Amino acid sequence: MSQSRRSFASDNVAPVAPEVMAALAEANSGSVHSYGDDPWTARLQTLAAEVFECELSIYPVATGTSANALALASLTPPFGAVYCHAESHVNSDECGAPEFYSGGAKLIGLHSPDGKISPGQLAAPIAHAREMGVHHVLPASLSLSQATEWGTVYSCAELAELTHAAHELGLRVHMDGARFANAIAHLGCTAAAGSWRSGVDVLSFGATKNGALAAEAVIFFRPELAREFELRRKRAGHLWSKLRYLSAQLVACLENELWLRNARGANALAVRLAEGLQRRGLSLLQPVQANEVFAAMPAALITALHEQGFEFYQWPAPPGQLLPVVRLVTAYDMRATDVDALLAGVDARQRTTS
Amino acid sequence: MSQSRRSFASDNVAPVAPEVMAALAEANSGSVHSYGDDPWTARLQTLAAEVFECELSIYPVATGTSANALALASLTPPFGAVYCHAESHVNSDECGAPEFYSGGAKLIGLHSPDGKISPGQLAAPIAHAREMGVHHVLPASLSLSQATEWGTVYSCAELAELTHAAHELGLRVHMDGARFANAIAHLGCTAAAGSWRSGVDVLSFGATKNGALAAEAVIFFRPELAREFELRRKRAGHLWSKLRYLSAQLVACLENELWLRNARGANALAVRLAEGLQRRGLSLLQPVQANEVFAAMPAALITALHEQGFEFYQWPAPPGQLLPVVRLVTAYDMRATDVDALLAGVDARQRTTS
Amino acid sequence: MSQSRRSFASDNVAPVAPEVMAALAEANSGSVHSYGDDPWTARLQTLAAEVFECELSIYPVATGTSANALALASLTPPFGAVYCHAESHVNSDECGAPEFYSGGAKLIGLHSPDGKISPGQLAAPIAHAREMGVHHVLPASLSLSQATEWGTVYSCAELAELTHAAHELGLRVHMDGARFANAIAHLGCTAAAGSWRSGVDVLSFGATKNGALAAEAVIFFRPELAREFELRRKRAGHLWSKLRYLSAQLVACLENELWLRNARGANALAVRLAEGLQRRGLSLLQPVQANEVFAAMPAALITALHEQGFEFYQWPAPPGQLLPVVRLVTAYDMRATDVDALLAGVDARQRTTS
Amino acid sequence: MSQSRRSFASDNVAPVAPEVMAALAEANSGSVHSYGDDPWTARLQTLAAEVFECELSIYPVATGTSANALALASLTPPFGAVYCHAESHVNSDECGAPEFYSGGAKLIGLHSPDGKISPGQLAAPIAHAREMGVHHVLPASLSLSQATEWGTVYSCAELAELTHAAHELGLRVHMDGARFANAIAHLGCTAAAGSWRSGVDVLSFGATKNGALAAEAVIFFRPELAREFELRRKRAGHLWSKLRYLSAQLVACLENELWLRNARGANALAVRLAEGLQRRGLSLLQPVQANEVFAAMPAALITALHEQGFEFYQWPAPPGQLLPVVRLVTAYDMRATDVDALLAGVDARQRTTS
Repeated sequence: MSQSRRSFASDNVAPVAPEVMAALAEANSGSVHSYGDDPWTARLQTLAAEVFECELSIYPVATGTSANALALASLTPPFGAVYCHAESHVNSDECGAPEFYSGGAKLIGLHSPDGKISPGQLAAPIAHAREMGVHHVLPASLSLSQATEWGTVYSCAELAELTHAAHELGLRVHMDGARFANAIAHLGCTAAAGSWRSGVDVLSFGATKNGALAAEAVIFFRPELAREFELRRKRAGHLWSKLRYLSAQLVACLENELWLRNARGANALAVRLAEGLQRRGLSLLQPVQANEVFAAMPAALITALHEQGFEFYQWPAPPGQLLPVVRLVTAYDMRATDVDALLAGVDARQRTTS
Repeated sequence: MSQSRRSFASDNVAPVAPEVMAALAEANSGSVHSYGDDPWTARLQTLAAEVFECELSIYPVATGTSANALALASLTPPFGAVYCHAESHVNSDECGAPEFYSGGAKLIGLHSPDGKISPGQLAAPIAHAREMGVHHVLPASLSLSQATEWGTVYSCAELAELTHAAHELGLRVHMDGARFANAIAHLGCTAAAGSWRSGVDVLSFGATKNGALAAEAVIFFRPELAREFELRRKRAGHLWSKLRYLSAQLVACLENELWLRNARGANALAVRLAEGLQRRGLSLLQPVQANEVFAAMPAALITALHEQGFEFYQWPAPPGQLLPVVRLVTAYDMRATDVDALLAGVDARQRTTS
Repeated sequence: MSQSRRSFASDNVAPVAPEVMAALAEANSGSVHSYGDDPWTARLQTLAAEVFECELSIYPVATGTSANALALASLTPPFGAVYCHAESHVNSDECGAPEFYSGGAKLIGLHSPDGKISPGQLAAPIAHAREMGVHHVLPASLSLSQATEWGTVYSCAELAELTHAAHELGLRVHMDGARFANAIAHLGCTAAAGSWRSGVDVLSFGATKNGALAAEAVIFFRPELAREFELRRKRAGHLWSKLRYLSAQLVACLENELWLRNARGANALAVRLAEGLQRRGLSLLQPVQANEVFAAMPAALITALHEQGFEFYQWPAPPGQLLPVVRLVTAYDMRATDVDALLAGVDARQRTTS
Repeated sequence: MSQSRRSFASDNVAPVAPEVMAALAEANSGSVHSYGDDPWTARLQTLAAEVFECELSIYPVATGTSANALALASLTPPFGAVYCHAESHVNSDECGAPEFYSGGAKLIGLHSPDGKISPGQLAAPIAHAREMGVHHVLPASLSLSQATEWGTVYSCAELAELTHAAHELGLRVHMDGARFANAIAHLGCTAAAGSWRSGVDVLSFGATKNGALAAEAVIFFRPELAREFELRRKRAGHLWSKLRYLSAQLVACLENELWLRNARGANALAVRLAEGLQRRGLSLLQPVQANEVFAAMPAALITALHEQGFEFYQWPAPPGQLLPVVRLVTAYDMRATDVDALLAGVDARQRTTS
């Protein structure tokens, strides 16, 4: 755990940012009302409205899975359908949390190579659902990930077009923003432009991967959709009694743009890493727009890097990709030297074999 | 929020104990594997086995409601019945979390004045259930609270008799130990004696009310019952990616008996408070065995204390109790002067009216 | 199974009325569209609107449990509360069906000796719920049984007062009318007066106990509440593909007032039985207003009647009732001689012992 | 509804077979115990054990959706995965019933042109699930349809190989046998050979499409899997009080091989229809092995047949199929003249255009 950071496995292996630790220490003073009737939770509501430049309802929870599942359950009846990318986190990595929270809704996975859903993909399955009537679950919501699971980022124009199509078809729009900060840092737009101004109804705003200890927020831009959220959150055991410690983390992230600074740092390292790999003759599967790099790598190189102590996951290779695929994730706490160490590891291996 | 602590509303208004804050800071070092493959989580498993003197499976979560609901869902099928006290937290204060997590099980509330269930209360409802066959939900589990919602504590003998009756009737036994530390401090027995040696199958071990930031543990003393717990926890969004920060809190609580020292402090203050109230002519509803005092109080005195800035809840008065009832909760962070300040408040009011 | 009918165990031991069998035979002609796009289902909709003198949405299903559970799920969110009598069928005899269908709602049982809920019983638990906020499930619906599980019948005035209280408190009102026909026959009022004109929002209209093979109907008097019922019904496997055979049964019941004639017959026999028992010195627990008689009986008499081949259930005796309690149910297919045979059985036993 | 039967839309548009109507009439005699304690239900258990030549538990319900969903819920925990064909009825036509009954399990759709799952399709997704650990739902069951949704039939050897692969991977095997009779009629094997001897653990045995009014049976060949089925059935409102009328239908189907005779009739007409279409130059999408014919048809011919009063559905065309696809279903109640009338309709259209 000393000197250079050799894990590129995930941004959730990172520690907590010093600013967040300081905020927790600062919040740890005396007794305050429990369950959210405290100054930090009030501050969070105000601050989020400023950052997003609109009225909103914001609810802090500790995990991304709960943020997503609670949000989707608010948008989707038990007999409803959620349209999402086939490889999205909600569909593939949450052990059926959306099904559990919604009471048995169905996730309908759409395919694309880059993790993005295109507007044209919605019409056919929804027309089919309408035609099937009561035999098919009711089209209810769209869940999109920003940044996507392939490290790509929808442009605001792409977002607006997709959410417009969804709304026209009667769907409400959820954005899984576990890496929303990385996306906004890439786009260089405002938080508002990248969310509600582009048609997002509910956002899972991630902070854990970006410097928090355990903190995400469900943000409703149409507060009428939030009506019963507080009951759902309590019922799921996601309402902390000492809520100040959850709110304080999110306040620390939003204040002074810590969330953007941290994300920019991680994104820049991902670009550095990607360019370094390309210069070494390795090819990328997708443009690097957030803090994830997907690269095709010979198996021997993967083994060599693992032997050097570098950690990262292999990823299911898409059709036609003959080499193994790896995912390399940078995070706010990494330095250029960490990236350079991995690139040096590649060099070392290549020297050996040439 | 400075000087004397005037809130007796709940032990969850307290801040985090310094030892826990120090543990979080200590855990905040470098990158570690996520989802529990980290040294703090390993340490927690070892330490808990030492403290409870047995093999066990321990799973940290952030809230008491999730600990209880996940535990009960492990013990109770969707078509099952949970027998519990009518006023228990699981039945009355969790917005139906056990129903949600179990997929619709039914909680059957048993009544008693002191919050304890007696062994004789189980036979009749379970005989009725058996007779009703498929028309009645299947008797599956008993959930008891230790300490109870009325601040009382089962003796080990009482526990053993109750859990024996439950097991004989085919029920598995869950203990809601949100205030387990206060109960053990009162009993002066070992953690083992107060749990599995007295027949408890699964324990919700509370730490949040006793100095943690947000940490409880579900402890299975019969590991075969835990088989699928990890899937349930993930699916519910209660598996932290940065799990070290949850485990580290619990390690800090268990190490050097912090949990017992904190609980003893709170318990002692509750006794001090109770005796003070009694000396001032007020009567208690139940013996004070943990950190809660239930007292009958004239409405005018309640108003006077509120006006002096003291915070506490009124409680539904049991049948036959003519005066209003208040609940006063002490916590690990309070000092004798805090209790004495409230007693002085009573004196002040009584001087006025005499 | 020949000569005299000796089972007073339930009205569901009865066979199917000849008019219903004829209707099934008549419906059994050629191919028709499935899933309700057939003449019998259309006829049912029209006929029900005539009988109830209002616009309504009617959905046939095969069982009372499904009718109740689907209706309650339409009125109650997963995080909601259903207020009902503690001994009601939905609370006590359906193996948790309302919990299952609603996704984990909570049934809150209210007590009374005669099976009726009085308007004054609602205010306190709902005030408590409001005060508890997110910690308590959301008050959502009232479910009342007409006739009740104790064979009593709300007057229209009682109904109106109760439903008014419920509506004022924000609850929607469901009536479990498994024996609605018996209630209306007793009241001598119109179907409209006994349902929506008295404030009922959704009615489970029972036919199975009153001559059908397997047919009940969920009737929404406020069609906007039915919006998603068809999806719920399909999803639960309660939409028959050959729906004509379900609709035809209900049409047969409603046509020519068969439902009322059958219910009047059963009710009259219950009165005959009750009066006969009273003349023989046995006492009744409740006034006989439908087709159920609850009588206190010496254990030896119960044994004697069982030995003579009469079938009926013992019932949990209410507090203060020292003798065993039996429930005797009459049905549309019984004759006066069946009742007289049981009374003769009582006489025979009493001669023996006097 | 007179003369020739022009609907080829589904086998569920058919009326009830005379033998089943006779059985209902025969069962309609006097009072019998409710909820299955009756001679017809006892007879069904015995008869099914004879027909399937093994010990089994059989539970009658009214619909195929409930049979499938109850069966899958018995095999699959809420956090489990059901592997099935992407176009299977359970995945595509039941409005999420398996998700509802299981409490939120996930259906994982596998693709193939002919509706059959091949043994090799299971290994990769299950290996992926195992690798994902708690982040992925737990592989629990395989659901296969026999006959398939494309009118094809697994041979016994294919079945044995598939179920063996599933069992090796830890899955339990459910067969959706809505058209099991048609499959067995095609295979010419015994019911045993086509089910448990080929590795099926639980069978949804369909009768409604094959002459019953509303009757299917869930048959457990490993009775230990049925342990809690009766509670699930009651809780779902699928336990009829007058169960004799459900059992009697199934008895009538099984007795004297009515189920096989009816299925053979429907199958023979499907072959007649298929051959007739092929002789007229139309091509089939799949071999006709049960009672469904999938044919490619010019749009103008479809319109012409609809105008002549023939009813049938268009079906989503598989990739590469340029013509529209129609599904034509025969049923036990049709005659050769009905099929010939449709073929004559094709001729009429072709004469017009040639």
